[in-house]
Amino acid sequence: MENLSKNKIKWIRSLQLKKNRDEAQLFIVEGEKMIQELIENHSESIEFLCVTKDSEHFLNNEKYVDALASEEELKSISSMKSPNKSLAVLKKMPISQLEAPFKIVLDNIQDPGNMGTILRLADWFDVKEIICSKDTVDLYNPKVVQASMGAIFRINVHYLNLEEYLSSYEGNIYGAMLEGENIYKNDLNPNGLLILGNEGNGISNSIKKYITHSLTIPRFGKAESLNVSIATGILLSEFYRNSPKED
Amino acid sequence: MENLSKNKIKWIRSLQLKKNRDEAQLFIVEGEKMIQELIENHSESIEFLCVTKDSEHFLNNEKYVDALASEEELKSISSMKSPNKSLAVLKKMPISQLEAPFKIVLDNIQDPGNMGTILRLADWFDVKEIICSKDTVDLYNPKVVQASMGAIFRINVHYLNLEEYLSSYEGNIYGAMLEGENIYKNDLNPNGLLILGNEGNGISNSIKKYITHSLTIPRFGKAESLNVSIATGILLSEFYRNSPKED
Repeated sequence: MENLSKNKIKWIRSLQLKKNRDEAQLFIVEGEKMIQELIENHSESIEFLCVTKDSEHFLNNEKYVDALASEEELKSISSMKSPNKSLAVLKKMPISQLEAPFKIVLDNIQDPGNMGTILRLADWFDVKEIICSKDTVDLYNPKVVQASMGAIFRINVHYLNLEEYLSSYEGNIYGAMLEGENIYKNDLNPNGLLILGNEGNGISNSIKKYITHSLTIPRFGKAESLNVSIATGILLSEFYRNSPKED
Repeated sequence: MENLSKNKIKWIRSLQLKKNRDEAQLFIVEGEKMIQELIENHSESIEFLCVTKDSEHFLNNEKYVDALASEEELKSISSMKSPNKSLAVLKKMPISQLEAPFKIVLDNIQDPGNMGTILRLADWFDVKEIICSKDTVDLYNPKVVQASMGAIFRINVHYLNLEEYLSSYEGNIYGAMLEGENIYKNDLNPNGLLILGNEGNGISNSIKKYITHSLTIPRFGKAESLNVSIATGILLSEFYRNSPKED
């Protein structure tokens, strides 16, 4: 097994920038759990995999491992605070298309943790498609990838001109707003679009006019607002709570 | 107005450690929004406030400001990544006690962001009291304080021996588990205790035996789990959705 070369270190580091990820059509995933899932389900997308010498777990699957790294080397190419034992460079692969009846729309979400958490939520509730405004944080930002906990391999994410997309959309368009209808008094079901807005400013004015149903999570106490990923969780739960599902 | 002295810088930095916060009974809050709320509602708890020279907003409230700091100085005492314009040292003040009918119980929550987000959620849904196991992250950890978005001033938080507390509790004890009853098929109402467990391991075995109702958020898709603060949001929404509330 080769040791991780200086050239590879430079190459992997370069992928922390969106420009380089876009050009190479590659991105990075870290951590045993997600990489194990990759090996099992998406091994064709693995371009390069390096692990630390003590990662026996992967060494049993040696055919996927391209190089061994010291802990210091892995730390130097990682974008995470706590050291990892494995890092993979992946090819961006299209997820098979399908016309989902219910989609999440993200209008200028900026925080990668929120974006990743929303992907994970979509994966939990089986929302198969997310539409993002072009100024939403990059799906392949390392913090988005990590926070998604594998959802990035299963959810279709598109970056579009939202105004164009919404203006020709014919179903219900729900928007999460501070002033809207009480979610608990609406019989919501997962059909249409659910728009979530920017962390500080909410849904853009240019987008608001397309909303057919404004929705609000009632506030019982004194907090001024909820984090957008928390609000997404509560909204999705309310949309899906009457859907058929085995206990 | 004085400039921030080296001694004060050293003193403020020392409060990043729990040991020193406990000894001095002090903690730190950063950012204009939370400090503005402090000045308006809890000015008696402000031990020391420093702001940057261009914080005109606060300089109109000059009587609360103890020192001026350069941006570099403020950055050096801050525990946040993005620079702030204001930092306050606060006295830990007891929040007026009350016997809340519904309480959140945290069993060994470790991530300060999760803890802060759960406080913010409690504040939104008006859960007035949170009981924590002694190994739960410190309420006054700077990241907990910031993520709580002011909720820390309104929610009663106690650190207790959970086993002792639960063994003498006589109401319903709900536990969020992977294998429990479907939350959507239970008529939940906010009465009793709701236990949330550790991020990696869930609720401890020694605590599980006190649970009278295991609850599960049904999964529709493929994600393996939900983040504990997201799960708390969905659960609280389900507990409160039938509670009386103006539209």
